Amino acid sequence: MTRAPLTAALGDFVANLRYEDIPGTAVAIAKQGIADCVGVMLAGSAEPAVAAVRSGFAPDTAGGGSSICFGPARAPAHVAAWVNGTAAHVLDYDDVALKGSHPSAVLVPAILAEAEAVGASGRDMLRAYAAGFETWGELISRDSGNYQRKGWHPTGVFGAVGAAAACAALRGATAQEAAHALGIAASQASGVMANLGFMTKPMHAGKAAACGLLAARFAAAGLTAAPNAIEHEQGYLGALSPAGDVDRERAPSLPPARWRLTEQGLAIKQYPVCYRAHRAIDAMLGLVRDRGLDAEAVKAITVRFSPSHSVILKNHRPRTAIDAKFSIEFALACALVAGRVGLRDLVDEFVLSEPIQRLVPRVSIEIEAEEMSGTSGYAPYDLVRVETTAGEVIESEHVRHARGDPQAPLSADALWTKFEDCALWSGLQLDARALFDKLNTLEHCRSAVELLR
Amino acid sequence: MTRAPLTAALGDFVANLRYEDIPGTAVAIAKQGIADCVGVMLAGSAEPAVAAVRSGFAPDTAGGGSSICFGPARAPAHVAAWVNGTAAHVLDYDDVALKGSHPSAVLVPAILAEAEAVGASGRDMLRAYAAGFETWGELISRDSGNYQRKGWHPTGVFGAVGAAAACAALRGATAQEAAHALGIAASQASGVMANLGFMTKPMHAGKAAACGLLAARFAAAGLTAAPNAIEHEQGYLGALSPAGDVDRERAPSLPPARWRLTEQGLAIKQYPVCYRAHRAIDAMLGLVRDRGLDAEAVKAITVRFSPSHSVILKNHRPRTAIDAKFSIEFALACALVAGRVGLRDLVDEFVLSEPIQRLVPRVSIEIEAEEMSGTSGYAPYDLVRVETTAGEVIESEHVRHARGDPQAPLSADALWTKFEDCALWSGLQLDARALFDKLNTLEHCRSAVELLR
Repeated sequence: MTRAPLTAALGDFVANLRYEDIPGTAVAIAKQGIADCVGVMLAGSAEPAVAAVRSGFAPDTAGGGSSICFGPARAPAHVAAWVNGTAAHVLDYDDVALKGSHPSAVLVPAILAEAEAVGASGRDMLRAYAAGFETWGELISRDSGNYQRKGWHPTGVFGAVGAAAACAALRGATAQEAAHALGIAASQASGVMANLGFMTKPMHAGKAAACGLLAARFAAAGLTAAPNAIEHEQGYLGALSPAGDVDRERAPSLPPARWRLTEQGLAIKQYPVCYRAHRAIDAMLGLVRDRGLDAEAVKAITVRFSPSHSVILKNHRPRTAIDAKFSIEFALACALVAGRVGLRDLVDEFVLSEPIQRLVPRVSIEIEAEEMSGTSGYAPYDLVRVETTAGEVIESEHVRHARGDPQAPLSADALWTKFEDCALWSGLQLDARALFDKLNTLEHCRSAVELLR
Repeated sequence: MTRAPLTAALGDFVANLRYEDIPGTAVAIAKQGIADCVGVMLAGSAEPAVAAVRSGFAPDTAGGGSSICFGPARAPAHVAAWVNGTAAHVLDYDDVALKGSHPSAVLVPAILAEAEAVGASGRDMLRAYAAGFETWGELISRDSGNYQRKGWHPTGVFGAVGAAAACAALRGATAQEAAHALGIAASQASGVMANLGFMTKPMHAGKAAACGLLAARFAAAGLTAAPNAIEHEQGYLGALSPAGDVDRERAPSLPPARWRLTEQGLAIKQYPVCYRAHRAIDAMLGLVRDRGLDAEAVKAITVRFSPSHSVILKNHRPRTAIDAKFSIEFALACALVAGRVGLRDLVDEFVLSEPIQRLVPRVSIEIEAEEMSGTSGYAPYDLVRVETTAGEVIESEHVRHARGDPQAPLSADALWTKFEDCALWSGLQLDARALFDKLNTLEHCRSAVELLR
């Protein structure tokens, strides 16, 4: 059996990708991912997990050249990437793609920090994003096992190598340097699922961003890795494999033959909670909007979705905002009471409020065993059924695609509304509209430094 | 089945360990590990892998408070730990313990960098070393599988958590902070075996040191991890497990009930090559010394050792110093020609020299299938047999314990000779004797800063 020289092929791809060769639709998706991630990062910048990581690095942040969350503070690029990645992932409001992982929360902080340090252009940043996304997609496609159940957080372990690809592309690495960067990052991939629900989980995104950035810098400085570090029998794919059935042999399927950015796209979240609650939230918001449903008139709520949704949305009696992010009961109560699920609803006070706590026990789960092919355990659709105090039973539409899914993309207005909301939530003094506009015309940006002006 | 609260138990141990409770023999071993590691780090400080890591961090090293390899350069503590750990592991000259892993190459750089940053005392450093070593030993004892064959480099993956334990102890963490530090480090454990033989491999030690140090700082700043991050079904032990048969249940076996420092000890290397070549080198040096064996008079050499030695010492036709570190053929030729295996023999020029290259093909391997119990695939003893040009066949002694093994400890003179040799090799301007004496009386050192004066 001949072995696909995967590490080398990825190195070639990363080094040779030209901006001009990226399809316009892929550029548009990358721009959306970057803009949305910047917004989410701003919103997350004041969270305690971010403060803890910043404080852990202090006083080692002097002399750096990259901005922390678009504020006045600056730090060494790898520190900025680590802090900003934590901010981008901490609210569970960042985009979803590639088997339920979170590419932008890792790629964007790494790219921003390094682009600012080296003064890269907007086109360089977009090229870097595409290099990182496609590398990530190629790697995560090679194992049918469940990484999460094995204990690996895909955002952490694939993110490190994806960010290395992005930063190697950004720096204009040669094919060999890029391959070394991937091999160095292979030895830095980490993040265990046990830390889901704790501050360490968003730190996985920051750590992956920082390690990917450092891997590209180390490779540029001459550090060598195994030329087959990814596909070697004792390498990255094999070590992480959930059940040892990873495909280390097949030839890679990379651009221009295949663009995962356009094929799979990015799901942009409308609600700052686990993505698996989004279809049911849309169903409930539809009832509120179309039927004028009133929380006072609701006796019982049933949600019907997949077994895997039921496992992940595990907090049945949420008492804090962190619990609430993985609680279908909160998600539906919130949609019903507030008519939305937004940043200002994900606060302890609202989670503990009487209308929410009254509704939470009225939510029950019905399991739909049928699985939609090509998904990580989604039912063909999710739905919500409400019984009113008057005895009426009303059923929502059958939601196949959450709002923001690549099949149900958000309007430009909705994207801006989310960004503005995030910027306001951050409390930072910045011109949100100007920044959003710059991000949406990133291909014309001459230097990342301009983004901060 | 009740589950041992391993993460919590380790947090308690780390937080409550007092210097006064460490047995004198354990303190002596820890001091030896620290002193030997400092020497080896000095010797490695000018290697290309170390320069590449330093350069990758530049220009982010301004404003730091920890020294790089006892030279004039200073850097943030985590950067110093990363660079110094790479230096400590790069020559394959650092100590061996705990199932063939390399504890000092990770623990010492982390402890030195943090101790200097916070002005910790020598006793604090010794306590930190003991906390890290015992934590590492407890964790690596829980899986009978072969981590290396699965793809994980034990020094990288256990080192991150060991260094977190050490730094949490050094900083005087509470039990809860220490448990969080271990949980944060669990999400930073990484390092794949594929990178053996490349510059990324020694970087694993540096990265583990830096991540452990940061984990303790993050925990001190309030970052939370799962209280059972180590033993959780989707946690550290399970995710890394070679075959899924890790013991996550049994109660921990920690001091004061059990001290692995005294029970297992540290093997201090006499030769800067893979430890598995050491018994055969001792055998050959015995022949040279006792029989006046002359390289010119040697027709054939046979080495008899275990199958696993034969797999790891895989470079049969070494052409570079890096190859030579994993070549039994070079090791024996070198011992015969030079009458030693030292730093100045591990250079490309000597590896390629006529007397070495002439002898290399004359070495053959005989496999001894019997395995010494309690070892990772060692034969009961190794031996060397030489056939002279005159037709005489002479056999070496049967070497059960390499010089420097806990069962065959080095004399104080031998330890100093190695340290002095390492310091000279480094080319650094420092008073090696004064530094060695300070390290050997570390319990009287009031602040780590004094080590550098």
